[in-house]
Amino acid sequence: MGEELSLLGLWCSPFAMRVMIALREKGLEFESVEEDLSNKSPLLLKMNPVHKQVPVLIHNGKPVCESIIIVQYIDEVWSDRAPLLPSDPYLRATARFWADYVDKKIYSSGKLVWGAAGEVQEAAKKEVIKCFKVLETELGDKPYFGGEAFGLVDVSLIPFYSWFYAMEKCSDANLSHDCAKLVSWAKRCMERESVSNTLPDQYKIYTFFMDLNNKLSHQKV
Amino acid sequence: MGEELSLLGLWCSPFAMRVMIALREKGLEFESVEEDLSNKSPLLLKMNPVHKQVPVLIHNGKPVCESIIIVQYIDEVWSDRAPLLPSDPYLRATARFWADYVDKKIYSSGKLVWGAAGEVQEAAKKEVIKCFKVLETELGDKPYFGGEAFGLVDVSLIPFYSWFYAMEKCSDANLSHDCAKLVSWAKRCMERESVSNTLPDQYKIYTFFMDLNNKLSHQKV
Repeated sequence: MGEELSLLGLWCSPFAMRVMIALREKGLEFESVEEDLSNKSPLLLKMNPVHKQVPVLIHNGKPVCESIIIVQYIDEVWSDRAPLLPSDPYLRATARFWADYVDKKIYSSGKLVWGAAGEVQEAAKKEVIKCFKVLETELGDKPYFGGEAFGLVDVSLIPFYSWFYAMEKCSDANLSHDCAKLVSWAKRCMERESVSNTLPDQYKIYTFFMDLNNKLSHQKV
Repeated sequence: MGEELSLLGLWCSPFAMRVMIALREKGLEFESVEEDLSNKSPLLLKMNPVHKQVPVLIHNGKPVCESIIIVQYIDEVWSDRAPLLPSDPYLRATARFWADYVDKKIYSSGKLVWGAAGEVQEAAKKEVIKCFKVLETELGDKPYFGGEAFGLVDVSLIPFYSWFYAMEKCSDANLSHDCAKLVSWAKRCMERESVSNTLPDQYKIYTFFMDLNNKLSHQKV
């Protein structure tokens, strides 16, 4: 088809990871362009002038922004293979609901688990675990959130598995124990090449976050 | 088809209004159930146990939550009439992007324009007007955000037109002047029965907000 696909991303961005996983589920080749968020490229500013954020998928010169929207776009353009949303409207709405839940709940609390201290961190840890338990209830006994098929909710949530080691080390959380079902699901997802080829090593993420915390605390002084 | 449609909503909720507009665009009959958010009904808590918020559309006994997701659901189930999303994947992604922009930007700042005072209100007013200008640029010379057809972005944004009088009275904003293009668009939308039958009177919204502000300030004392 002569498709040109570029992804403006960042190796540690869970939102960029979602897009990479979706592209890999569809078996699509793409160019990965690493952005420097402290010095955003003219291309990023041109392609996402509203939010100026990664990820941006550039498909034949045209930008698509916001990770969940990009994943749905990929699913609609390459609808002939590896569907990420079910065809039934009710199941589609359910998948969108849970992807939206992950968007609203996990990132904001999760980054406080590794990035904050004291009471703020403790409250964030409780909140994240509470949200993970809600997600475990939704998962139930299904192998994936989409049922037998890996889909939108799985794509939305699995990038945060790369944060688990950092969250545990920074907050004394024991996610393997408290969220055993979610960890089993995550390991199942990691058996897919689309996921294992995308998620960075959890220890690398941890050391990156620690460096970031140090820099930010020095800036405050 | 013997469809049973109930909407758990609230007369002043812009999110519930979106769903009513979408249902009316499709020409669907529905039962409107007014919720009391200070005393949520067992039905609301059962149908939206995760967020416990309106709107919830109950279709043949099954709940769909989150307004933008509900609008897409309605569009997918009744795809034979009055399409709210375009069929082209790129245009669909663009519509979802702008509906998401409205969701992220307008409500949070808008409620501070009528609900806050001093510097917070002034900053919120500037932010809302800035966002409206961004939306005016996106609208361009098109009659609707979707082009010739009234669609998802229009449905998402138009309920906030019912806030305009309250925002102007509370903050000395002059939206008719500063956002003339958007006001023209809003008046165009108001010519549609789906919209004019849904949006409450702007003065009624204003007096409701003033009562709410008074109650909240007494609670603080």
